[in-house]
Amino acid sequence: MNLTEALQWRYAVKRMNGTIIPNDKLHRILDAIRMAPTSSGLQPFEVFIISNPELKNKIQPIAFNQPQISQASHILVFAVWDGYTEQRINDFFSLNNQERNIDSAVTDVTRKRIIKSFSEQTAEEQMQHTSRQSAIAMGFGLVAAAIEKVDSTPMEGFDADRLDELLGLREKRLKSDCILALGYRDEDNDWAIKLKKVRRPKHSLFTFIE
Amino acid sequence: MNLTEALQWRYAVKRMNGTIIPNDKLHRILDAIRMAPTSSGLQPFEVFIISNPELKNKIQPIAFNQPQISQASHILVFAVWDGYTEQRINDFFSLNNQERNIDSAVTDVTRKRIIKSFSEQTAEEQMQHTSRQSAIAMGFGLVAAAIEKVDSTPMEGFDADRLDELLGLREKRLKSDCILALGYRDEDNDWAIKLKKVRRPKHSLFTFIE
Repeated sequence: MNLTEALQWRYAVKRMNGTIIPNDKLHRILDAIRMAPTSSGLQPFEVFIISNPELKNKIQPIAFNQPQISQASHILVFAVWDGYTEQRINDFFSLNNQERNIDSAVTDVTRKRIIKSFSEQTAEEQMQHTSRQSAIAMGFGLVAAAIEKVDSTPMEGFDADRLDELLGLREKRLKSDCILALGYRDEDNDWAIKLKKVRRPKHSLFTFIE
Repeated sequence: MNLTEALQWRYAVKRMNGTIIPNDKLHRILDAIRMAPTSSGLQPFEVFIISNPELKNKIQPIAFNQPQISQASHILVFAVWDGYTEQRINDFFSLNNQERNIDSAVTDVTRKRIIKSFSEQTAEEQMQHTSRQSAIAMGFGLVAAAIEKVDSTPMEGFDADRLDELLGLREKRLKSDCILALGYRDEDNDWAIKLKKVRRPKHSLFTFIE
């Protein structure tokens, strides 16, 4: 496997063929998402992995009828925390200290500093922050999928309120942020398959200060 | 190369040893960032790749004196567009149509729809949107670095206004959003090297709906 080739091969698939992803590939993609770094290690999101056909069919109209939703093998809904609560931060430190076998007193100053720091942010700032962490993790998932030769489409075009309602996310204090459709390209019917991959030239994207 | 092993190997390095990244590795990491998908393909960000020692030393106090800034081989400043202007969207479509050899009339409806859609968003919504695109691309860079066995530290802890000032980003209508330090771990002095990698257990991060 060569990363450059894998990333050239991938594109945002517009039509999928319904083929199911082998379980080992799906789980390696999820492992990559789980391994993504997040601010203070908090992982302020959850991922809903939906393969149920009826539920996918209900989501499709919420996502402006984009056919990938029902044609995908799995759709991953990245749902971010609706805010950094003290409880959520405390829970993370409990896990962290247990895993690393350290006394809670050792991390107390850090824990309180993080709680204070987030408490000073507006809801919008927190939302931008959780969304950024979730997006980095989605980036990991996208690369992992390409390496596994699994097609993917990152999707922002959906009615988040209706999706939150359908999945019961408000009760979980989560907000849907992004969808990642995983599956296999429909070689015969995807008009996007023939399009040249366009990226801004390096000189307009990158500035080197040496 | 095995992605799972690479992602287990990587961690947010706290002390780097100053070793310079070979040019071919750096450019494969940048290629991955450039290949990341973005909403409508707009790539609403630029990346400043800083290896100049004096400039890194000036940035370090702006980033709460985190030593990775000066110890890194390169620091990548991801700077997002300060908004989706008509000009920026038009420029993208010019590039897109030229690369794909299609007449501008073909993409006119889409182009106008995108301009209208962004014009209806608040500055905060646009900022959250550009930041998400940039974060996905940073995710690509983080995975590519791990595959290249280059260490990395994603950093949000810096004074964005001061960094914008130092790099002259306001004149370019950009805002610094994230820093990615690239280099090599200082095996003798990085206290973080011995820490167990902690991630939330799968059952708390993932919900399967089959």
